[in-house]
Parts: sequence; structure tokens; C-alpha cells
Amino acid sequence: MIFVGFGFLMTFLKRYSFGAVGFNFLIAAFGLQWALLMQGWFHALDYSDGKIKIGVENLINADFCVAGCLIAYGAVLGKVSPVQLLVLTLFGITLFAVEEYIILDLIHARDAGGSMVIHTFGGYYGLAISWMLYRPNLDQSSRLQGSVYHSDVFAMIGTLFLWMFWPSFNSAITDHGDGQHRAAINTYLALAATVLTTVAISSLFQKHGKLDMVHIQNSTLAGGVAVGTAAEFMLMPYGSLIVGFCCGIISTLGYIYLTPFMEKYLKIQDTCGIHNLHAMPGVIGGIVGAITAAAASESVYGAEGLINTFDFEGEFKNTDPTRQGGLQAAGLCVAICFGVGGGIMVGCILRLPIWGDPADDNCFDDEPYWEVPEDEESIPPILQYNNHMQNKDIAESNFTMDQN
Amino acid sequence: MIFVGFGFLMTFLKRYSFGAVGFNFLIAAFGLQWALLMQGWFHALDYSDGKIKIGVENLINADFCVAGCLIAYGAVLGKVSPVQLLVLTLFGITLFAVEEYIILDLIHARDAGGSMVIHTFGGYYGLAISWMLYRPNLDQSSRLQGSVYHSDVFAMIGTLFLWMFWPSFNSAITDHGDGQHRAAINTYLALAATVLTTVAISSLFQKHGKLDMVHIQNSTLAGGVAVGTAAEFMLMPYGSLIVGFCCGIISTLGYIYLTPFMEKYLKIQDTCGIHNLHAMPGVIGGIVGAITAAAASESVYGAEGLINTFDFEGEFKNTDPTRQGGLQAAGLCVAICFGVGGGIMVGCILRLPIWGDPADDNCFDDEPYWEVPEDEESIPPILQYNNHMQNKDIAESNFTMDQN
Amino acid sequence: MIFVGFGFLMTFLKRYSFGAVGFNFLIAAFGLQWALLMQGWFHALDYSDGKIKIGVENLINADFCVAGCLIAYGAVLGKVSPVQLLVLTLFGITLFAVEEYIILDLIHARDAGGSMVIHTFGGYYGLAISWMLYRPNLDQSSRLQGSVYHSDVFAMIGTLFLWMFWPSFNSAITDHGDGQHRAAINTYLALAATVLTTVAISSLFQKHGKLDMVHIQNSTLAGGVAVGTAAEFMLMPYGSLIVGFCCGIISTLGYIYLTPFMEKYLKIQDTCGIHNLHAMPGVIGGIVGAITAAAASESVYGAEGLINTFDFEGEFKNTDPTRQGGLQAAGLCVAICFGVGGGIMVGCILRLPIWGDPADDNCFDDEPYWEVPEDEESIPPILQYNNHMQNKDIAESNFTMDQN
Repeated sequence: MIFVGFGFLMTFLKRYSFGAVGFNFLIAAFGLQWALLMQGWFHALDYSDGKIKIGVENLINADFCVAGCLIAYGAVLGKVSPVQLLVLTLFGITLFAVEEYIILDLIHARDAGGSMVIHTFGGYYGLAISWMLYRPNLDQSSRLQGSVYHSDVFAMIGTLFLWMFWPSFNSAITDHGDGQHRAAINTYLALAATVLTTVAISSLFQKHGKLDMVHIQNSTLAGGVAVGTAAEFMLMPYGSLIVGFCCGIISTLGYIYLTPFMEKYLKIQDTCGIHNLHAMPGVIGGIVGAITAAAASESVYGAEGLINTFDFEGEFKNTDPTRQGGLQAAGLCVAICFGVGGGIMVGCILRLPIWGDPADDNCFDDEPYWEVPEDEESIPPILQYNNHMQNKDIAESNFTMDQN
Repeated sequence: MIFVGFGFLMTFLKRYSFGAVGFNFLIAAFGLQWALLMQGWFHALDYSDGKIKIGVENLINADFCVAGCLIAYGAVLGKVSPVQLLVLTLFGITLFAVEEYIILDLIHARDAGGSMVIHTFGGYYGLAISWMLYRPNLDQSSRLQGSVYHSDVFAMIGTLFLWMFWPSFNSAITDHGDGQHRAAINTYLALAATVLTTVAISSLFQKHGKLDMVHIQNSTLAGGVAVGTAAEFMLMPYGSLIVGFCCGIISTLGYIYLTPFMEKYLKIQDTCGIHNLHAMPGVIGGIVGAITAAAASESVYGAEGLINTFDFEGEFKNTDPTRQGGLQAAGLCVAICFGVGGGIMVGCILRLPIWGDPADDNCFDDEPYWEVPEDEESIPPILQYNNHMQNKDIAESNFTMDQN
Repeated sequence: MIFVGFGFLMTFLKRYSFGAVGFNFLIAAFGLQWALLMQGWFHALDYSDGKIKIGVENLINADFCVAGCLIAYGAVLGKVSPVQLLVLTLFGITLFAVEEYIILDLIHARDAGGSMVIHTFGGYYGLAISWMLYRPNLDQSSRLQGSVYHSDVFAMIGTLFLWMFWPSFNSAITDHGDGQHRAAINTYLALAATVLTTVAISSLFQKHGKLDMVHIQNSTLAGGVAVGTAAEFMLMPYGSLIVGFCCGIISTLGYIYLTPFMEKYLKIQDTCGIHNLHAMPGVIGGIVGAITAAAASESVYGAEGLINTFDFEGEFKNTDPTRQGGLQAAGLCVAICFGVGGGIMVGCILRLPIWGDPADDNCFDDEPYWEVPEDEESIPPILQYNNHMQNKDIAESNFTMDQN
């Protein structure tokens, strides 16, 4: 689902749909294999015979692993070459595996939907890379940095897919039974609330009260990101609705005010606005998760529920919910540090002039990397025809007239 | 699935894809929350502590609830403002909850796929609203009331999705085991039969034997609607095929003859032809359900099967199949009454001049409610350029020539 | 899933999207019903009362049955009439049922993902028909035999869908438990490896290192075809990766060199390149399956695993893996023979001049069979307007000037 969802969500650019879908596919296929290896080394290595045993859960985990890199791709969409993307993915998956190991296994934070592990990390990783690869003259290709009518509809395919499968996504790796149902319901409610506030805010802050398709495509998903960590906890329906409500507002305002601000003053060019869709809601999700965990009590979850939900077993048998809240917060910090630090490091590597990155006026264009069908929309011929007519036909007819 | 299916099914309009997908999304998100509340008050309210307990089944039920409003949206697509849609949804969900309570709980009719509860109600609700909101001068925007090549392909995404998931949809809330398998198989066969007759009729009744994409997009689904009620009964495969066969004919002929007739003489403007896709097949489904229920016997179902299928338990222990057939017919009448009555009432409310509905020449246009990408298909610039050239450049060149 | 996947995979043609999606739908709906009957007669007929008992597994089997015909449609896409397609489907399903019965029941070969039964048969069936229906003057419609930007994006929807659901597809009819998990994991890894080699080869063999969308759309799926037979065997992850790796190379090179060669010298016009996506990988899959089966041993599978995986029961109790390898190879030969032989036979029937096939210059065009929206992309009006302006307005203005 990740492939369809993320792939089409990024097709909104006028002339970069091939790149959006195709490179997504490439990242995903490469990332999956690398992620299986990395996660195998960290988790599934069987020391008795030195082999990695894989099962279906490993494939799901690899999917999640790849999601972080696809998020990061959103920030640099249209500005990097496929080789740079492979490097980004290679390091991204490696960092992800280390970060996930630290947060989930060492710190023992819980993160069912990956608000911290996937979204916060992936978001800041992408933003830091985008910051390192800042292109001052990107306005040379600004004519291509917009959408056309049909490309926006393609992007809506991605949005609806992600929206639909987000409840399954957030509940995929939770404990079966209660936790899984809670996760699905919480996510569902948060997403529904986010749609409403996104529409309201988009309409309020645009001139003439018109809706902006960019907000509908992206901000409507922010609620799902933000309940990721807390999804399996007892967030209660009203809690999910509040989280979704706030995220819709923050994410939409982010698109309106923060993205232009970041581009202008912080020198971070964020093509898909992943800061508003993944990074910010991910941080909110981490905070909500920490608060909800700290507020957990035996009277609400039941003694056994508390142990199952927070996995208070083995060496963590004596952790109490308050301490778990602290651990969640620590996990969030680790995710941000790995994202920013790793992004700056990888960004430096990607600045080396050996990766064949596109020129400033070729950004957001499929032309450099794809065989684009020539007769596309037949616009060039018409323009050419007009120019031709203006320069030659009319001129000629005038000349002939002059001669008369 | 509802979101992708219905959303894209409605994208066929040339310049209203944003509205079709986006407002569908808005209705769905708003409707889900309201439906959870409404259904909670009717079914899931726990009197001991005054709280509504929700589970995954409630979410599925809320989905179905919303489907009725999305169907109604089909009739008024492109002619109402988002605020009107929210009002339509608000009242639609409320009416639906009451109607469902009466049909399923009080009358004790069975309606697995919602032929009566969802499709008949939703269809007539939408048609009645469309009748109240009749616009005599709608031909002012007739230039936009057509499709373009790509928009028809988008609509086919919706069709195929609904087609594919209809068997799961019809069997989602049936009893597990036999009934569920029967529902899936019956729906599957009815849908397959409908496709064939739709293609045949579409080809026969069009000039030059050409197929009309509108029929393929819509009528192919009518069979799924019509087996909705009877899906979990012993309709037998040949029964499903006959129902699908008839529905394909009726629905396609409806698009060819009935929709223009209704628009001209009954003053009902039905943008998506929901009368042919939902209302008529829904009524057929109700009738087929009543007949099949009345014809049920212990020799075919087995004693236990009969009780499980029709839920002859508790206060309905003494109902016999013949009586159940009557109850099914009564349920159908209730659905039609609620649809027509509710639609007229809500239509009156929507005629109040406070909702910001679009002008006649702005219908079927995304422009009033969406930030539409300016450079769309680059048609306007070219025309402008031509005009410009014609008025100014040529004039100037002529002037300069005149001066010569 | 078959409907969405195959349907959209074929929408890449500029002006044949309606035909691709619509006729696919028609074939599928017709084929499903016929396949249920055919498979019923061969497998599910209950001799006690002369009735066919159907269940959900029959529906899945019918789906697979139809897949063979949809593959064959890929070879003749855009060159046949709907009536010819129905004939193709009618005979295709019949041949498929006989061939499946021989391979799976008589020869007792195993073919979980249908590499031989579905892909090899479907591929050669379509190619043989295409050979019989060779059109020497097809270049008359070569202007339409290309893609436009958006149609390629639509085709990517199909690709991603098939990619995503291929693991489920290959594991759908395997034994539950171990075999099913193995099938899913093997398919997943083969697909991931194929994507990487496809991108690499596509980039290497095109001028300027650009990627070709046709390869990305099709060759990325070849790995899934090629592990079809061996998916449930102990192919081991590295085996799957190797198979996927090779298939990506072979399939992409097939598109670059083999398809033009076949069209020029063998007189086989293969619109979608099914030889590269289905026929060749299917044969590879059959060979890999035979080798893997022959190499099976009790030490790897365990005694019980061996019996479960290869179904060594009843009259096949004494088969050993080596012999099973031979049976697999025999199955592959049967599939090829049925495909080629059946295709030539059906091709002869389709050459009768009674089927209303399109003229050479109408191929790849929706116009003959569909009501195509007139105002498509509004290009014609602009050209007309320009001509109009050039011929009349300018002429007039010049004339008036002349008069001055």
C-alpha cells in the first residue's frame, strides 16, 4: 500500500509524475532488500548458524523502514538524481535501523504507528538533506513547480489510499486483540477530525474562501501521523478527535505560512511540505504518546492490560507509567537527533559533485531522466505553431503585402 | 473503500474532479463522526454509565451510513455548495439512523447489502433534493456538463474499485459462515451478468453500435445493488444471474431514456444518474429480497439455517418466511417514504438563500470553490495569446505597415 | 484485483484507454461466468444430482482462469473488435480448463502462481493469435501507438497494483501455513530484485541513460511471473533474488531488442510486449520450478513437508522429487503446446471476415467502438481557431489594409 499511496501522493507536479511514481518504486524496491538485511542483522540473526530467518513480519517491518525514506524523498522531490536517491535510501535505512533499535529495544519506548520512529525521523532527515542541498536559483524552474488539473487528481488517489489504509497501518504491528482495535479506532477518528479542520482552515485562510487542493491532499493525513504513537494506548475517542482537530489546524497553517517562511529564511526547500505532514505531526504524536503513557493507570487499563500494552516484562518489569512517559520523550529526542544529524551528514555526502544531480532549471522535470512521450498534450506544437505563424507567416504575408 | 470508489466514480465531469473527490472526502469525514454519534444513540448507548461504546463494527456501520449520503450527493453533484452538502449530510445521516432503526430493528427486515436501507433511501433522498433545487437555466453551464477523455478514465478507477469490493461490501455485516459466503458469491455473479447486459444494451441502443462510457461506468454496478438484500438468502446462482441480467438492461435503458425524460418533464436533474444506479436497482433489490424471503423453506435452508439467516430469535421466534416477505416489503416502503419525504424537507431547507450555492453558469465548475491551477492544460494562455496577437500585435504590425 | 491491475496496465495507449479498461472489464465478466461453468464441469460437478457446487475457491480459480485471457488480450490490444475478444475469451477459457486439468490433475505438476498454467499458456496463446492476425499495414495507425504523459501515469496505477498484490496472488491457492508464507516471501523478494535490474538495464541501454516508462511499467513485474511455480517450494531468499535479477535483465532486453525483432521478422505484433512480461518469464518460471522440485530432498523439507508441498498422496504416493522435476517439465511443454496450438486455431477462426475487426488505420483508436467525448483536451478547437484566424481574420485585416 505504501507504494501506491506515497507514489501517487507525490504526482501532483505538472511534469514530474514519472519521477514521483517511478523513483518511489525504485527507492521502495531497493530499500526493502536493504532493510531486510539491516533488520535481520539487528533483530533476526540466528547466532547458531549465522543465518537470518525471515517471515512475513519482517516484510512488514521492512515496509515501515522504507516509509521513512519515502517521506524524506518528499522534501527533495524533483531536485535530486536517482543515484542520489539510492545513496539517501542506503544511509536512511541504516540510520533507521540503528535508531529503531535504540528507541524500541534500548530505551523501550512504544511506537505502534511510528510517529517518532518513522515520521519524525523521516521528516527531519529529509529536511536536513534539503537544507544541505539548498539551491538558491531554484526559481529558474518555478514554472514547473506547480500542478495541473489532472495531476492533482492523481495525487488525490494517493491521499485517499493512505487515508483508507492508515488505520490498518497504525494497527499492523500492535498486539493482537484490544490494542489493535484501539489503534484502528483512534486512527480512524483522528483522521476524520483532521479532514474537517483542514477544509475549514484552508477555506478561512485563502482569499475568497476557496479551498486549496494541496491542503486537502496532505493535511488531511496529519491526524493519522499524530496518533501513531498513542494509537494503541487508551487515548479515548475524544482524545483522538482533539489530536486530529489540532493537527488539521497546525498542518494547514504550516502549508500557508511555515513552508514559505522556511524556504525564504531557513533555506529549506520542502517540495511536498513534509514538515507539515510528517515532521510536525510526528513530534506532536511523540508528545501525545508521552503524555498518554505517563497518564496510564491500572484502573483504566487493568493490571494485565497495562503490562500487555506497555510490554512491562523481563528487565522492564518494574517500569511504571510515569517513567514510561519519560522514556517516550527520550525516544522522541533520539528520533529528532538521528533525523537532523543523519540528514546533515548524508546531505554533505550528496553535495559531492559526482552524483549527476539536475541543473537548477531542470528541476521538477522528468526530461533529464525519463523518455517522455513527445506529443504530450500537444502543447509545444501549438506554441511553436503560434510563434511560427507570428514570426514567419504573418511576416511573410506582410512582406508580400509590402511588395504589393 | 467507499471513499475511493464513490469519489472517483464521480470524477467524470470535465472541470469538477476536485469537487467530486474533495467534497466526497468532506462528506465522508463529517458523516462518519456524526454517524458514530447517531448510531451510538440508537444502538450502542450503554445506559449504565451514559457512554457510547464503539468497536470496529460501529465503524463499518458508520461507513454504510455515509454511503447513503454519498449516493444522494451524486444527484446534486456540481450544483450545490459545500455548506449545503454538510447540511444534506447532517440531515441525511439523522434520517438514515432513524430509518435503519425502524427497518432493521422494529420491522425486523433483513438487509445485508443495504439495497433498501442504503441505496433506495439514498437514491430517493438525493432525487427529491434535486427536484426541490431544480434549476431551469442549468443549460448555461452545459458546456461543462460533459467529460473529457482522462476524466472518464479516472471514473473507471471508481467503477472497478466498487465492482471489486462489492462482494465484500454486501457480505461485510452478514452472519459469518454460510451467509457470508453466499452473499459474496451471489453478488459476484450478479455483477458479472450485469456487465454483459450493460455492454450489449449500450451497444444496441446507441447509434453506430458504439458503447457509451457512462453506461459502462455506472450500469455495470447495478446488479450489485439489486442483490443487496437477497445476497445472504438462498437466491441460487441462476437467481443472481437473472437479477444481474435484468438490472443491466433496466439501468442502461434508464440512462438512455429515463434520465432525459426526468430532467425534461419531472424537473429532476440527476447529474450522475443515481436513479438508474441506486434508486431503481435498490427497489428491485427490495422486491427480490421480499420474494426470496417469502419463498424460503426449511427444506432448503435447514431448520437452523432458517433461524440464523432470518434471525428468527427472541420476540421474532414465531415469524414464518411468508410473514418475513411481508416485512421485507414493508421495509422497502419505509425506505422510499423516508427518502422522498426527507429529501423534500431537506430540499426546502436548502432552498433558503443563505447557503451560498453556485450561480447557474457556475455549476459543474471547480472554480468557485477551489484554487484551480492556473496553467491548466495551458489552454487559457494560448487563447489569450491569440487574442492578444490578434488585437495588438497584428494591429501594431499593420499600423507600422500603414505608416510605411 | 485482476481487473484494476490488468485494466490499467494497458491504458498506456494515447487513445485506447477506454478500450483497454472497458474491454478488459467485458472479458473479465464474461470469462468469469464461462470459467465457473468450465471448471465446474471439470472439477466441481457433483455426479449425484448433476449440479455444480460452487464456493469462494471456485471464484478465485475462475479469476485465475480469466487472467490467461487478459494476458492474451495484451498481445492483440487495439487490433481486434469486442466480438473477436469474446470469441478469444470463449475458446481461451475452454482451452485453459483442459490444459489446467491435464497439467495439474493428470500430470500432477505443481503450479501455485500459475507460471506455466496461466502465464506461459496465456502468453503464447496471445502471440499465436497476434501472428495469425498479422497486419502488414499497421503503420497507418502508428501515430496512435504511443503514450501520452497522463496515460503512462494511469498505466503505473496498474503496475503498482499488480506489484502489490502479486505476493497474495502467488500464495492464494497454496497450502495454508508454511507453503503460503514461503510463496509470499519468495514472490516479494523476486519482485524487489526485478525492479532494480529493470531500472539499471533500462538506463544502460537507452541513449543518454534515460529510463523508459514502458520497461518500468512492465518488466518490474516479470520476477513475480518467474517465481510463480517455485514460489511455494524451498527456493530460499537468495534463489528468489537471483530469479528476479535475471528476469529483470531478460525482460527489459526483450523490450529493447526482441519485440522489434519479432514484429519485423516473425510477423508478430505484440502491443503490450506480453512476450517479455508473461511468456518468457513464464517459461523461466517453469524451468526454475522443475529444477527446484528435482532438487528437493527430505533433509530440507522434512518428510511431512515434502508430502504436503508436492502433494505426494494417493496414487502419487511413490513419486520422488526427481520424477516430480520431470513432471514439472512435462507440464511446461503442455502449456506451450496448448498456447501455440490453441492460438493458431483460434487465430484462424478470428481471420474470418465476419467479426467486424477495425481497419488498419483505426487500430489503437477508441473512436470505432466508443462514444468518445468530443471536446477532448480542447486541442482541435484551438487549431481550428488558429487556422480560422490565419485564413480569414488575418486575410481580412490584410485585405482591408490593401484597400487602404
